[in-house]
Parts: sequence; structure tokens; C-alpha cells
Amino acid sequence: ELPRPYPNEIPHNEKLLSLKYESLDYDNSENQLFLEEERRINHAAFRTVEIKRWVICAMIGILTGLVACFIDIVVENLAGLKYRVVKDNIDKFTEKGGLSFSLLLWATLNASVVMVGSVIVAFVEPVAAGSGIPQIKCYLNGVKIPHVVRLKTLVIKVCGVILSVVGGLAVGKEGPMIHSGAVIAAGISQGRSTSLKRDFKIFEYFRRDTEKRDFVSAGAAAGVSAAFGAPVGGVLFSLEEGASFWNQFLTWRIFFASMISTFTLNSVLSVYHGNPWDLSSPGLINFGRFDNETCMLTPPSFPLTGGILGALFNALNYWLTMFRIRYIHRPCLQVIEAMLVAAVTAAVGFVMIYCSRDCQPIQGSSVAYPLQCCGIGVLAVCSPPTSAPTGEQPLALLWGSPQLPLVTLSFLPFQLFCADGEYNSMATAFFNTPEKSVVNLFHDPPGSYNPMTLGMFTLMYFFLACWTYGLTVSAGVFIPSLLIGAAWGRLFGISLSYLAKGSIWADPGKYALMGAAAQLGGIVRMTLSLTVIMMEATGNVTYGFPIMLVLMTAKIVGDYFVEGLYDMHIQLQSVPFLHWEAPVTSHSLTAREVMSTPVTCLRRIERVGTVVDILSDTSSNHNGFPVVESNPNTTQVAGLRGLILRSQLIVLGLVPPQVFVERANLNLVQRRLKLKDFRDAYPRFPPIQSIHVSQDERECMIDLSEFMNPTPYTVPQEASLPRVFKLFRALGLRHLVVVNNHNEVVGMVTRKDLARYRLGKEGLEELSLAQT
Amino acid sequence: ELPRPYPNEIPHNEKLLSLKYESLDYDNSENQLFLEEERRINHAAFRTVEIKRWVICAMIGILTGLVACFIDIVVENLAGLKYRVVKDNIDKFTEKGGLSFSLLLWATLNASVVMVGSVIVAFVEPVAAGSGIPQIKCYLNGVKIPHVVRLKTLVIKVCGVILSVVGGLAVGKEGPMIHSGAVIAAGISQGRSTSLKRDFKIFEYFRRDTEKRDFVSAGAAAGVSAAFGAPVGGVLFSLEEGASFWNQFLTWRIFFASMISTFTLNSVLSVYHGNPWDLSSPGLINFGRFDNETCMLTPPSFPLTGGILGALFNALNYWLTMFRIRYIHRPCLQVIEAMLVAAVTAAVGFVMIYCSRDCQPIQGSSVAYPLQCCGIGVLAVCSPPTSAPTGEQPLALLWGSPQLPLVTLSFLPFQLFCADGEYNSMATAFFNTPEKSVVNLFHDPPGSYNPMTLGMFTLMYFFLACWTYGLTVSAGVFIPSLLIGAAWGRLFGISLSYLAKGSIWADPGKYALMGAAAQLGGIVRMTLSLTVIMMEATGNVTYGFPIMLVLMTAKIVGDYFVEGLYDMHIQLQSVPFLHWEAPVTSHSLTAREVMSTPVTCLRRIERVGTVVDILSDTSSNHNGFPVVESNPNTTQVAGLRGLILRSQLIVLGLVPPQVFVERANLNLVQRRLKLKDFRDAYPRFPPIQSIHVSQDERECMIDLSEFMNPTPYTVPQEASLPRVFKLFRALGLRHLVVVNNHNEVVGMVTRKDLARYRLGKEGLEELSLAQT
Repeated sequence: ELPRPYPNEIPHNEKLLSLKYESLDYDNSENQLFLEEERRINHAAFRTVEIKRWVICAMIGILTGLVACFIDIVVENLAGLKYRVVKDNIDKFTEKGGLSFSLLLWATLNASVVMVGSVIVAFVEPVAAGSGIPQIKCYLNGVKIPHVVRLKTLVIKVCGVILSVVGGLAVGKEGPMIHSGAVIAAGISQGRSTSLKRDFKIFEYFRRDTEKRDFVSAGAAAGVSAAFGAPVGGVLFSLEEGASFWNQFLTWRIFFASMISTFTLNSVLSVYHGNPWDLSSPGLINFGRFDNETCMLTPPSFPLTGGILGALFNALNYWLTMFRIRYIHRPCLQVIEAMLVAAVTAAVGFVMIYCSRDCQPIQGSSVAYPLQCCGIGVLAVCSPPTSAPTGEQPLALLWGSPQLPLVTLSFLPFQLFCADGEYNSMATAFFNTPEKSVVNLFHDPPGSYNPMTLGMFTLMYFFLACWTYGLTVSAGVFIPSLLIGAAWGRLFGISLSYLAKGSIWADPGKYALMGAAAQLGGIVRMTLSLTVIMMEATGNVTYGFPIMLVLMTAKIVGDYFVEGLYDMHIQLQSVPFLHWEAPVTSHSLTAREVMSTPVTCLRRIERVGTVVDILSDTSSNHNGFPVVESNPNTTQVAGLRGLILRSQLIVLGLVPPQVFVERANLNLVQRRLKLKDFRDAYPRFPPIQSIHVSQDERECMIDLSEFMNPTPYTVPQEASLPRVFKLFRALGLRHLVVVNNHNEVVGMVTRKDLARYRLGKEGLEELSLAQT
Repeated sequence: ELPRPYPNEIPHNEKLLSLKYESLDYDNSENQLFLEEERRINHAAFRTVEIKRWVICAMIGILTGLVACFIDIVVENLAGLKYRVVKDNIDKFTEKGGLSFSLLLWATLNASVVMVGSVIVAFVEPVAAGSGIPQIKCYLNGVKIPHVVRLKTLVIKVCGVILSVVGGLAVGKEGPMIHSGAVIAAGISQGRSTSLKRDFKIFEYFRRDTEKRDFVSAGAAAGVSAAFGAPVGGVLFSLEEGASFWNQFLTWRIFFASMISTFTLNSVLSVYHGNPWDLSSPGLINFGRFDNETCMLTPPSFPLTGGILGALFNALNYWLTMFRIRYIHRPCLQVIEAMLVAAVTAAVGFVMIYCSRDCQPIQGSSVAYPLQCCGIGVLAVCSPPTSAPTGEQPLALLWGSPQLPLVTLSFLPFQLFCADGEYNSMATAFFNTPEKSVVNLFHDPPGSYNPMTLGMFTLMYFFLACWTYGLTVSAGVFIPSLLIGAAWGRLFGISLSYLAKGSIWADPGKYALMGAAAQLGGIVRMTLSLTVIMMEATGNVTYGFPIMLVLMTAKIVGDYFVEGLYDMHIQLQSVPFLHWEAPVTSHSLTAREVMSTPVTCLRRIERVGTVVDILSDTSSNHNGFPVVESNPNTTQVAGLRGLILRSQLIVLGLVPPQVFVERANLNLVQRRLKLKDFRDAYPRFPPIQSIHVSQDERECMIDLSEFMNPTPYTVPQEASLPRVFKLFRALGLRHLVVVNNHNEVVGMVTRKDLARYRLGKEGLEELSLAQT
């Protein structure tokens, strides 16, 4: 009579299901040694720890900002170099005729650059692929995808994103910043690099999952902050994705890291551009100044379109990803696909420019170049300086900072097929970095774009971006989404201006902004954090309300069809991801029904051989073992006394036994274990195979109560699933012991047991999930 | 060897300690009836509930916005009327001589208005006194101060704040908006008013603490949003104070309510001022437009001063509050004190104006009057319109909207003792509503204020505001704090401009803003939310970073001396307030040491008489009773089976018994209880005295397992205090049963057991707390 879980309807790939993720444990530190250390902590020691936390957050902010600067500067220079080469070449061929050679050169150049970016990702560190946002969402949720916060991943990610952007793919460099920030945070907070085998012997207190996760939240926030110049948005992103338990002090530290990050980026870029007081680049993308003098009414069709187009994007990407999982799983195939996309992107652009011939007279740009700005500002978009000479303006408009000599050289391609004094607007939209194109669409004066051009551009870019996301390259989907939305938003604005000529209701730039918000919301389905990020990126709180409405409606519309892009990819990877609440219709399920049973228990005083055998048993991969009252004679269920983790048992095995104590008729082996042993081994605990136990030792007994967590959280077996879920989620648990009325162990609930239920179209469904 | 709690060193008032607060329970709904209903809930029913939640949030936003409008409009009109009367009078006496009569009239008028405001608060609803923020903090934390969310409180609050502001006290109308929003939310979400005895029979699903608390969070956020035009700040305020468990959907709804609230206020005020499209009043106070063209470097002395002055303010207010608790606890004394303060405030202003004679030539105002604005904007501070004629400018500058005829009449007082074409800047600073004065200090051009005037003003206003806070009137401390800070900030800016004449580093308005932030931060010690509120009120994200730095440092400096104002008042009221974490040095305490024991248990099948006796026993005031295995023969500790609340037992008694069942040798009384019975009785459960049980019935047995919560949360007795604390806080519990290894009840942890520890100067201290 109670609804039973439906069989899972989502096709799953065996390869993905065989992946093994690691659940994080925000509560495993409660072993006896740790409790003893905590008891010793006094006020002064606590203050030292607290100061260290702030120092780490400052360092996270600074380093994240510097990495963002590095990416920005290198992309700018490499892309400039590439454009110069192509431009020289086009010049030559334009004189001689034979533009197809130019196309070939352009496509080859892009494909080669992308090839390098793809090779390092596919062969060296596959987890660096994509934006990294799904992976960081998982980490903050409590599931560690292998290698996700390693130094190697950071290096590959940074190089990969540079090469993807330089290679002209339809990608942004913003998403990967979030991943980068998280890796930086994970590294710094541990005070060592396991990859480099360097241990600075600092911050040892933070070597456990709880603390590390908090710092990774700060790193992710710093990444958002550096990417969009949105420190508050960064904090909200971290909280939305990660916070199971809101803590004021933690939030404040996260905010601090975010602020430092955007400030660092801003300062360094200002110094690099030769104007140290011009703090005008709070993020990798700045939307430019939006005035609120003109009015607009956002029609409801906007978020509707955003939601539908977003859902379409996600659905297409879903099929594509399924295809990739099935057929393109070998690294060399992945590299070839990336190269193909790069070449096609270049070719499509070229052909469209050739066909459209949408020439526009060169005119002054409306982009407010932020030059004068104040020393207090990190998010400033300031007053425009004296405008550049008209002839050079579109350049700046197209390709970055006028200070760089290479920019002034890269103009010609955009004049393609147009008379002197005119420029090709299709080329403008297509050959820019997507960031610049977005800003142009927001700020170009009315009449800069031909509707036909924009329509074609939207269409082509939509499919290109969709094809690109999920390639084995490091790249983000934020900017392409914004660009698609800005394009159709502006198109809409232009159409409206035909209806209401000259009316202030029809500034196409504002519609571009709303379109961008709608499209991005329709694809990623973030809510509060995205509203604030967009608000901060426009630098104007006025836009908060319409952006919120647009994002909310786009999310509702999009959710009607298909999930958000990140959630979709998380689900495709079979990650046991815990949502905010248990499915509403799951109240009829109880702990008894969802728990894993029978569960391997250890006795309080256990034979060493038994422990080793249990750990070596590859058929079971339990990570936590309830410790029960020693009762060597029966195998019955017994009273719960504690919980011990696989990692703790392994560390126990690493330390040579100190004393063999003869007690009663038991050979009791004692080990003098220190908290430092746990901390040194964290987080890469060796496998049990590396521990050698002699036959003599196997026969000894070990008293586990010295190392176990003596007070694990438990639930009665009649507790409903939502109740178990809430406890598990709120406290960030990894194991929850299920007991009966007499406190005897009857089962164990792990993340996978809770994450597998979801509310499908026809009721409760059960997902297949990967091992953890 | 383990640190033991120190005796409490804080003197406490017996009267306050005898207050009885009510703990809220975010988990009490888990009785069998509720579980059965939840099991029946299907997808469609869930969707209906979800839609209702959104509708309620929209209504909360709209009503909160309307209440803010009401306050704003009534204050404007009443104050205008008062000024007209006084002005006419001063005109008369200025001609005749005898200004002391004017002073007398002015002081009497103010005192009478304040008297009315004070009388309604002191005699009708004392909980409406003050800003209400401490009370709402307590509510969100889980402690309900009696009457705090009643309709009567709202009415008194709104009238009280209008009268306080009109009475010329050094108060703001912003703080009370938060309380008002919370009451509105609590009322609407229940779909009835117990005071008015109207039950609309809607929203019955939400009649329990968990749901109500969520809506109150939204209401508080809507209040902040209406007060400061800061929807994101409002959300963060609610989260900072209330969220034990962050939930994405809840946050999104809170944000929605906030946005609706500021939008409603903005629309209605715009229509009222006759310009429906001029959406320029997102909040009750708007800081005006801050440009970021000029630069400033905030010296570290700023937050230092803010922190120290804030601490001084709090310390003075602490002594004053102690004095009031001891000696001014009779309502008529309280009214007299309020009248005295009103008269003194008027007199001090008059004398200072008379003595200072700081005449400034009338010049164009720098206040950017927001007139042109866009239909999408709710937070807009837009471009200045054509400036008003010079002669009238200071008027607008001093006393509100130029549209109102009464404003143009109220100019003369400010010309006091000055020649024609000049105005008295002390009068300007003193006789304005504090909101206007703050904006003036931010935006008046350099040279508008004489340093001497500002210094005197800061000094006097500091003491007046300090004296005023804690009076038995409805009033907020936000605006006075901002005003004090703006005054000394501007003073600092002026001093600096003497040093660096004409430099852009010395725009005194910017320093006023930073001073205001520092002072407010030093007094209230809010962190992230205050940063965002200030950022949104300035309408410019650029100021986020310096404001954050200033607030952070002011908080650190202030915390060194004394607590924040709200926390101080909460502690003075002996409220069992749970902070974010247990004191760090409390790891050596375990559940066994903090729990209440012995605990009154009920048996699963219990004699009705025993239940009634336990409930009637006035010496114990338990609110939850563990239900243990029936074992009528022994009085030993027994296995835990469930938890039943006092309120559930009382509802059980309200329903006439249906069936007497003869089972074995027990007379079992059965009651056909519905969930509706609980919902109808919520939240004002009758006392046990109102339930009459016959002698026959007393001898019957009742099966409690049909109504109890069958799976209460438990902790083992060895669990450390921080662990117990975390569980309690994260899940929002009211009762936590402590069990031994055999699942037998050994004690109970309630809020009071956890809240009484705090980290003092000399280690762990124990507070005396009121009953809950």
C-alpha cells in the first residue's frame, strides 16, 4: 500500500558506475585522540587557530586573484599573437586572392592550440575537463571526485582554459576560476603538497575533512569573486552549494577571501595595464556601466524564452554527453573531437562572415571604458575617459585594451568584405573573445547590429556552445550562455524598437542584459547567487529585481522540461549527491528500509587478524565499522559502543606496535598513536595491502575503544527517511548507525542510501549510483 | 583538572529572571498523526503547499511594504503639522521677543506626543518597546518572548514608532520595520488572528513552529528590505540570525518576499508623491547617490573610533538599562522618563542652536534628488532633476519632499539667529528627521558645516541617542547610530581637508559614510548582512570593500570591550540564546554534566491520573516527557520509546474520550484525535487547569504511543557539549533525550542547559537564565 521505489529509468553507463567516489566526512574527527586534544585547547590556543584561519583565507584570496590575473594576461597576449599571425596572413591573401587559405590557416591554428589543451586534459588529468563547477558542487556536497583538488589538476586547468580560449572555442574562462580557487584553498589550508612531497609543517590542525571543506568553500567563493567581480555572489554561491550548516564566522571568512580575491585581481591588472590607481577590473568579465536613466519593461516572454532555450540546450547536451560516454571515451578520440569543434567553430565563423556582409559604419563606441576610479573601489565601473579616436574605436570595442600595440593591428579581419570606414558586424560578434562580445551586445548603441546577423549568430553560437560543453577541454559555459542570451535579447530589443521607434522602452542593450540573464538561468538554474552575481557584475543594484524575476521564471520554465546543466552532469556521473531535502513523498520510507544491512561490526576488543581480514576483504568496501560490546562467544547483534573508520584502522596499522600486554588470557597489543599520525596520513590513506601484519600479531587483541568515536550519531530504525536525511545533511555525516530499541546495531545508512531516491514523474524513483 | 564553570558574575534582576519565555520547537511535529498525514502527501498536494508558501511570501512582502508606507506618510504629515504649529508660534514670539516661550511650546509639544507613544507601549504592550530586533533575533534563534508576534504588538509598534519620530526623539523608524514584518508574517502564515478571534481556515498546514519560523524569517527580511531598500541584505540578516539549516528553497522565498516588499514601498510612495513612474524610494531611508569618481583612503583610525565609540555607547546603555531594570520598572515612571527625554532633546537642540550661531549662506544642495527613474528599478537612485530654486533648496534639504506644501512653510526655524539668505547649520543638523540629517551629512558640499557645530552636535547627539535607546517607546537605533557616525566622520573629513586643501582625498561626505558604517558596526556588531545593507543603501557596489573592512575592524575593536547592543539586551533579559557554536573550551563537558536529571518519564501505557498530576505539578515545568517502556512494577530507568510534549498531552485532554476499551485487565481510554485538534490549539495551548478529568477517568489507562513522537533524537551521555550543541542547533531542537548504552533515559538536555555556558574573561562561565 505504500509507494515503492520505481526501478531506475535513466540509462547508465557501466564505466561510470564503476567509478569510485570518496564521501567526505565532516564528523570523523571525533575519535578519542582528537577529543583529548580538544579538551586541552584553551582560549589562547583557540585564538591562534582562529588567526590562522583568517591568514589562510587571505592567502586563498590573494592566490586566486593572482591565478585569475595570470589567465587573463596570458590569454590576452597569446590571443594577440595569434591574431597578428592570422592578420598578416589574411592581408597577404586578400591582396593575392585565395581567402580559403586564410580560412585553412585560421582553422588549423585554432585546432592546434585546442589540441594541446585537449591533450593535457585527456591524457594527464581528465578531471580538469569542463568548468569544474559540477565537481566543486559535489565536493561541497560531500563527495570527493578523485584528484579534484590536487595541484596537478590546477596546473592542467589553468593551462587548459588558456588554450581553449586562445583556440577560439565558444567557451569562457570564468567557470574554471571556481575550480581553481577551490584547489588553491584545499592546498593552502593543508600547509603541504602531497604531489610535490613538500610538507611545510603548518596548518596541521586543519588536516581533516570538516576544516578542509570550509576552506574549499572560501576558495570557490574567491573564484566566483575573481571571475565576475562579485564577492557577495561568491559567498552566496558557496552557501547555496555547500552550507549544510550556516556559521556566521565561517561566512564572514568566506566573504573576506572573496573580497581579497577581487581586490587582488583588480590591483594587479591595473598595475599591469600601467595605471595602478585605475581599479576597474574587479572580475575577469565586467558588464560595463549600466545607467538607470532609461526605462524598460521586461515582457514575460523573456524568461520564457530563456527557460525553453536553456532546457533545449541542456537536452541537446544531455544526448551529446550520452553519446560521448558511449562512443568517445578514449582519450585520442576526445582530442580529435575537440580539434574538430575548434576547426568547425572557425569555419562557421568564416563562412557566416562571408555570407552575411553586414557592414556598419564605424562609430563611437558606447562602452564605458572604466579608467577613472577610486582607490577604495574594487567593484568600480567608473566614468568613461576621453574617447579614443573614432577610427580605432571599434578595435578597442572588439579586442581589448587599447594600450596593447597588438590590438591596433588586429583590426583588418573585421573589415572583411566591407568598405573602408565600415566594419563587419558579424565578424565583430564572431571573432571576439566571448567576454568582449557580451559587453558589446550590452552597450553598443542602437543600430550597431543587423537583425539578420544577430539571428544567424544566435543560432550558430547556440549549437556551437552546446557542442563545446562537455569536450575534453577546460572551459566554462557561463560566458557562452550569456552571449547567446545577449544576442537573442538584443534581437528582441531591436524588433521592439521597430514597433516603438525612438521610445526609451527599447534600448536593445538592456534587453540584451535580460536575455543574457534568462539564458544563463535557463541553463544553469542557479537562483539567489546568480541574481547577486549578475547584480554585482552590472555594478548596479537597480537591476536586482528584474534579474531576479527573469531568473526565477526561467528556472521554473526550464525545470518543467529538464534539469539544470550542472545537476544533469552530476547525475550522469552517478554521483551520490544529496539535495536539500528528501523527496516529499518519501515519508513512508523508514531507516529500516533504506539502510544497508547486515553491517560488519567490530568488537571493542578485537583480534588483529579479524580487523586485517575485514579491511582486506575486497567484496565489502565499508568505510566505517560500528564497534559493539565485546562478546566473543556469540555472533548476535550487540550494543553499540562506538564507530571506527577504515582510515583510522589503517593508521593504526601503520604505527608499529609498542607493547604487548598480557592481560587475563588475552594478548593485548597496544599502539602509541598520536593525532599527528592521522594528520600526516590524511587525506591519502594507504591501502590495507601496504600494511604487513605478522602471524603472531594477528593473534593479538587490540582495544579499539582507545581510537574509536565513542559517541556516533544514531537513528532508531523506525525513523522516517526525511528525518534521517535531515540529520545526515545538517551535520554532514558519512555514516549513520541505525539501532533498535535496545541500542543494538541493525544497519548503517550511508550517503548512497539516501541519495538514490528522487522524485520522478511517476513518483519515487531509485537511481543507480557509483560506489563511494 | 578539567575547567569547571565559573559562577556567574553578571548581576541579574530577579524580576527578569522570573520571566518565562517559550522555546520554539522545530521538530515537535513528528507525532504519529503528523507522520500519518505526511505519508499521505502526494506530489500534487505537495505542489499546492509549495504554491501556498509562495503566495504567503508575496502577501508578507506586500503588507510589510504597505505598513512601511503608512509609517512614512503618517510621520511626514504629522511632523509637518507639528512644525507648522511651532513655526507660527516662533514667528509670533520672534517679533515680540520671548523665545523661551517657543522653547517651552516646542518641548511641551514633543513631550506630549512622546507621552502618548510611551503610554500605549508601557500600559498596553510593553514588548513593543525598542526596535524589536533583539526580540526577533530571539524568535529566529528559537525563543519566543511572550506576545512578540501578536497583532496587538504590531498595532502598538506602528503607532509607537510614528509618535516617537514625530516627538522628535533621537530615534529611527527603520528597526521597528523588522519587527513589524515579522509580526505580519506570523499572522498571515497562520491564516487567522487569535486576538481578533477570526479563523480564515486557510494555511492550516503551516500551524506549527517550524513553518511559522520560516515565514517569520521572510517577514524580518521583508522588513529590512523595506527599511533600507536592501533585499539581499534582508535575506542575509534573516540567515545570519535565524538559519540553523540553510535551505535553498526557503532562501529563495525569503528573497522573493524581500523584493516584493521594497517594490511595494517604492511603488506606493511614488504614487503618493504623484509620480508613479519615479521609483526612487526603495527604502524608508535612502542614502542618495554616491559617485565613485573621487577617491578616498579610509584611515584605520576610522573603524577604531567606531569600535571604541560603539563600545562606549553600549557600556553607557548597559548601565542605564541596569538602572532602569532596578528603578524604573513601573509603567508611569517609564512614561515620565520618556517625556523627560523628549523635553530634554528639544531643549538641548534649542540651546545649542542659540549658542552656536553657525550661519551658512544658502547654496544649492548636492543631494541627488532621485526623480527620473526606470520602471524596472526598485533600488534606483537616479539622476538629479532640474535643481530647485536656490532659495527653497535648503528646505528640501532639511525637511523632505518639495511636493508637500507644508514643507515650504517649515523653513523659518532654521534661519534662527541668522541673517536673511543664510541658514543655521546647527538647526539643520538638529531639527531634521535623523534620516534627512544623515543624507545631508553624506551629500552636502564641502563647507556646509562648521567643525565646531559638528563636534558639539556629535557629542550631544551621542548622549541623547544613548539615553533614548531602551526607553519605553517604539524606536530604532540604526539611524541615530548612522547619524552620530556620519557627524564625526564628516568632522574627520573636514579636518583632513584642512590638511590637504582641495585634494580629492578629502570629500567629507565619503568620510561621513565611512564614519556612519563604523559607528553602526561598533554598536550593533552585525557583519555580512550589515555590509550588504549599507552597500545596497548606497546603491553602489563599489563601497562594499571599504565598508566591509570598516565593519570588520569596528566589530573586532568593539568586541574587545563589550558585546553588541542587541546581544547585550538579550543577555540582560536572561534569554537562553544559543550562539553559533558552543564555547571552544567546553569540550571537556559532556552531556551527562549539562543535562537535567532526573527527568520525569511517562510510561507507554499510562494512567490518566498520573499524566494529569504531572502536568498540574507547578514545581516542574517540563515541556517534553520521554515515554518509556511500560513496566508498571518498577520505577527503574527504562528503555526510551518516544517523546511526548506537554502541548500534545493537553490537546489530548481537550478532546472528549471516545471509547473505553476493556483490554486484559486495563481500562484503556481511547481518544479520536485529529491533526486538526493540534492545529486549532496552536500556538496558545490552554493550561492544564482548564481540563477537567473525572475520577473514573483518572483510573483509566491511555496508550501514549498513538500520539508521541516515536523517534526522538537522542545523544549518549558521554557526548561532548559541542557535539550536543551542534545537534541541537543544527536541527532546531527543544528537547534532546540523553540515553545510556542500553537506550535507557538518564536525562534531558534543553535549550537552557546549553545556553548557560559562555566564554568569559577567565574561562567558562555559567549564566543565570530565565525559565523557558
